[in-house]
Amino acid sequence: SSKFDFTEHPHRRHNPLTNRSVLVSPHRAQRPWQGQVEPASEEKKPTYDPNCYLCPGNSRAGGKQNPKYEETFVFTNDFAALLPDTPSFQQQDESDLALLKVEGVKGTCKVICFSPRHDWTVAEMSVDSLVGVVRTWTEQHRLLAETDFINHVQIFENKGQAMGCSNPHPHCQIWATEFVPTEPAVEFENMRIYMQKKRSNLLVDYLAVELKAQERIVCENSYFVALVPFWAEWPFETLVLPRTCSPSLQDLDSNQQHALADIYRRVTCRYDNLFSCSFPYSMGLRQPPTDRKDSYEYCQLNMRFYPPLLRSATVRKFMVGFEMLGEPQRDITPEQAAERLRQCSEIHYKHQN
Amino acid sequence: SSKFDFTEHPHRRHNPLTNRSVLVSPHRAQRPWQGQVEPASEEKKPTYDPNCYLCPGNSRAGGKQNPKYEETFVFTNDFAALLPDTPSFQQQDESDLALLKVEGVKGTCKVICFSPRHDWTVAEMSVDSLVGVVRTWTEQHRLLAETDFINHVQIFENKGQAMGCSNPHPHCQIWATEFVPTEPAVEFENMRIYMQKKRSNLLVDYLAVELKAQERIVCENSYFVALVPFWAEWPFETLVLPRTCSPSLQDLDSNQQHALADIYRRVTCRYDNLFSCSFPYSMGLRQPPTDRKDSYEYCQLNMRFYPPLLRSATVRKFMVGFEMLGEPQRDITPEQAAERLRQCSEIHYKHQN
Ligand SMILES: O=P(O)(O)O[C@H]1O[C@H](CO)[C@@H](O)[C@H](O)[C@H]1O
Ligand SMILES: O=P(O)(O)O[C@H]1O[C@H](CO)[C@@H](O)[C@H](O)[C@H]1O
Repeated sequence: SSKFDFTEHPHRRHNPLTNRSVLVSPHRAQRPWQGQVEPASEEKKPTYDPNCYLCPGNSRAGGKQNPKYEETFVFTNDFAALLPDTPSFQQQDESDLALLKVEGVKGTCKVICFSPRHDWTVAEMSVDSLVGVVRTWTEQHRLLAETDFINHVQIFENKGQAMGCSNPHPHCQIWATEFVPTEPAVEFENMRIYMQKKRSNLLVDYLAVELKAQERIVCENSYFVALVPFWAEWPFETLVLPRTCSPSLQDLDSNQQHALADIYRRVTCRYDNLFSCSFPYSMGLRQPPTDRKDSYEYCQLNMRFYPPLLRSATVRKFMVGFEMLGEPQRDITPEQAAERLRQCSEIHYKHQN
Repeated sequence: SSKFDFTEHPHRRHNPLTNRSVLVSPHRAQRPWQGQVEPASEEKKPTYDPNCYLCPGNSRAGGKQNPKYEETFVFTNDFAALLPDTPSFQQQDESDLALLKVEGVKGTCKVICFSPRHDWTVAEMSVDSLVGVVRTWTEQHRLLAETDFINHVQIFENKGQAMGCSNPHPHCQIWATEFVPTEPAVEFENMRIYMQKKRSNLLVDYLAVELKAQERIVCENSYFVALVPFWAEWPFETLVLPRTCSPSLQDLDSNQQHALADIYRRVTCRYDNLFSCSFPYSMGLRQPPTDRKDSYEYCQLNMRFYPPLLRSATVRKFMVGFEMLGEPQRDITPEQAAERLRQCSEIHYKHQN
């Protein structure tokens, strides 16, 4: 048949946030895999680990000692990629066409422990504990936004060894910078253009399209919707969007904070249940630059999950070769991924029966 | 001291090909690593493996049998991500601001075995054998360029399990497409703008800058120079540039083909010697679209290596979290990486003494 079938025929989808495309090859999902398998580390972790530099009361690599914290705990990264006191640097050739363009940059890196419990993960935490995490994010975001050399605050969580996470203790990081990094800068520019031309907010319009289509929704509550975006690159990538216009964490009231904590738990719990394993991912929040209040009109707070697993707890997708040189490629369609995630329970597999 | 020092102070470097930036945090190179270590697989491989679907005479997963080839061997990928007979697909809403943009795409995927020898890698092959590989690339590129539904030919090699390579038999892939993928499209556009404004070729000018600076050169021969680009993202990323104006493989004479084979061997041999291991990487060739002859003016053939290892055979760089959400980040500077690679021998460690 020559009728076009998205579950069968190779096609490209466009990401309006980045203006880049992803190649979808749905017929390829069944090829045999003889490559690397990930270590499936399911040893039971202790509630407290004397060798963990994030557990309460322990000493960190830099020599400082953690307090006996009982909820969340925030500190400045002992090996920060960004520092507040970088001397400024003047470029010699500032022309647009200069080939060696460089700038000195200021910033700061923080770590937020989610809980004193070494053995917990977001998927297994209570919504109440996660409300504490959301409040800590909000407080840190506010403090950093008030810091005059900070113009962008990137909150992200690397979960699992496959995602370069060096410590299983539940935590996230904040890298706050005087510059807006490349990816958010590109997205903000495309959202600005969309607002200018259509007089509406790109992600608000996009959520309306998805709620109508009902094909890629994973789960929802009163204030947030989790979905597999039409242009997802990673096999089980998800995007969490607010139903209301909420540019940043500062715009959420306590009901909305609770709803964000709820969806954070539910998405990660579905992930763990998908392959009955502690599912690796990078999570990140997208928020507008802290110094450009006009961007509040076209920005919209959102949370993304970029998880590498493809077929099982041990077989991942590699973004290499064609993906590095050409463009990202995926096998299963976003609609198929959403369907799989919709079928997963929101009760964690370790606590079922 | 408040003097700016690139080996000490965080800074951002700009990539003129992509118009994106990389964050460099050189002071961070010494942080302790407690994360995932890669399996260091150094078992000796047989010259012929009866279970390898790429070895001469063996059957492949699709059921076809390989000939008893003696040099290179080319076939169409049995699990191709792109197919020549995809039906065409017409988008309903073609507006620039449409949120669900999709197109059906045609293409083809090929595999090129470099040698009948299962146990060889590029780093250990003779230059004469590699000249055969370069000639096969050139021939395949010519054939595909003549195919009317093909407008871009991506030649790439995924080497090693860490790079998603499922078979150690030395081989590369070609994904040829009717569309120009996102990454080359962005680069060609930036090269076109540079040519329009400066009346010269971006990569020709860049090589001149690097040859003058002498800080990031790794090795060179009469026709090619291998260097760590000023904007390198991966710790030991390299870029191989021709000294002459040579937009594509079709522009190389037999001396230049020999020189490309020579530098391919020398770069990969230095990589293996860096950590005394079979060094994983994705290699890719950049060539102009096959249907737009005007692009020959501003394009320039080049070869890139994107290797993940950072500190040893088992500790890699993870491009996760901040890198996915914000922008790529590196610890050691490109100049330090070039210095390390310059110190490596061009005699393979397995054959020394
Ligand atoms: O075709 P292979 O070698 O099985 O697959 C490998 O290379 C492809 C092209 O770079 C990637 O899309 C896959 O993720 C990777 O595992
Ligand atoms: O700071 P960590 O957790 O040690 O390091 C991890 O996250 C960073 C930020 O995403 C990355 O740059 C590192 O490559 C990764 O290993």
